[in-house]
Amino acid sequence: MGRLIVAISREFGSGGRLIGERLARELDLRFYDKALIALAARESGLAPEAFEEAECDAANKLLFNLSMGSSVVRDGLFWVEPPVGDRVFIAQSKAIERLAERGGCVIVGRCAAYLLRRNPDCLKVFVHGEREDRLRRIVGQYGVPEEEAEELLSRMDRGRANYYEHYTTSKWGAVHDFDLVVNTTALGVDLAVRLIRLAAEKKQGAERLEGDHF
Amino acid sequence: MGRLIVAISREFGSGGRLIGERLARELDLRFYDKALIALAARESGLAPEAFEEAECDAANKLLFNLSMGSSVVRDGLFWVEPPVGDRVFIAQSKAIERLAERGGCVIVGRCAAYLLRRNPDCLKVFVHGEREDRLRRIVGQYGVPEEEAEELLSRMDRGRANYYEHYTTSKWGAVHDFDLVVNTTALGVDLAVRLIRLAAEKKQGAERLEGDHF
Repeated sequence: MGRLIVAISREFGSGGRLIGERLARELDLRFYDKALIALAARESGLAPEAFEEAECDAANKLLFNLSMGSSVVRDGLFWVEPPVGDRVFIAQSKAIERLAERGGCVIVGRCAAYLLRRNPDCLKVFVHGEREDRLRRIVGQYGVPEEEAEELLSRMDRGRANYYEHYTTSKWGAVHDFDLVVNTTALGVDLAVRLIRLAAEKKQGAERLEGDHF
Repeated sequence: MGRLIVAISREFGSGGRLIGERLARELDLRFYDKALIALAARESGLAPEAFEEAECDAANKLLFNLSMGSSVVRDGLFWVEPPVGDRVFIAQSKAIERLAERGGCVIVGRCAAYLLRRNPDCLKVFVHGEREDRLRRIVGQYGVPEEEAEELLSRMDRGRANYYEHYTTSKWGAVHDFDLVVNTTALGVDLAVRLIRLAAEKKQGAERLEGDHF
């Protein structure tokens, strides 16, 4: 699929990751999720655990950032070290941009759709679902204990919104950030894959046509 | 298509109305836009012009409402008459509910997706597009003079957002209000029709399956 990038933002429990994996398989694209974290971690010199935590609970993370931003005096100058969360974000963003240059991939999470918003090869997708349906999925498919599901879902929703709104100038779940938004409760995962695939093929087709002129 | 209702909210100039008309034709559904206004007007006793104005410039409308809400003393009680804009909205909402009971229709605008948010037969769609692309459409297809297009678009965007946010508890363009959101700049009108049609057929299919059990 050439230079195409499908960037998927998703609510926890909406099936967005599964959709991304299926798309990657069906369209023969590379898939980046945790692999991306690892890639970013290798080059930045940050501890891999910092990446694991980055998106899990941005609400706590922001407090953590405030308390942990440290400063040093070096070469007679006062240097403020960016908080760990911000360094993780910067390392991830650079990795996403490198991956985007190669194209031919699906990237799930990490504000990729926002970071690549001006990239004409990027299809920007948001996947969401009704709360009850997402609860069922995280218990039934992700194996979260039923008694913990409600609280985890609330924490993840808050965390992803905080993370997105901390690192972008937009709102989590604003339609204008996306080319296509699907509600998996209303439409189901199979149809979501089909719709995103049609949009991806159209994007790819347009790209090919443009390519013909140059 | 049985009881199916496709409710489309759309940004001015995004092609949402055209998409609604094409869907209605392809799926053999009734189409409501201005026809709905007329229907609501007949039963409410309000002047048809009040309906024409209702969505055009909600920013001004809200000021108008504040200044025009009148009161009377009747039967020894102090009655406050709802502002004209609110009476228009109530009349439209009742009309939308009556149409939804019959089903088999496409409704464009008038917060229909929000009003019918708990109706299991309703597919809720938002159509948007990039500003430059919408400007081109309102000049090239809607015949708006080029020198007026920028200002009109800004006024319509503000008006629709104000209208939606005045009459609902939600935000204009919040993904959670919709089953499917399409950006016509990225995907084009033809593909938007195709994607919404697939979603409508799925909704209709699910409906039929549910119907089989009863």
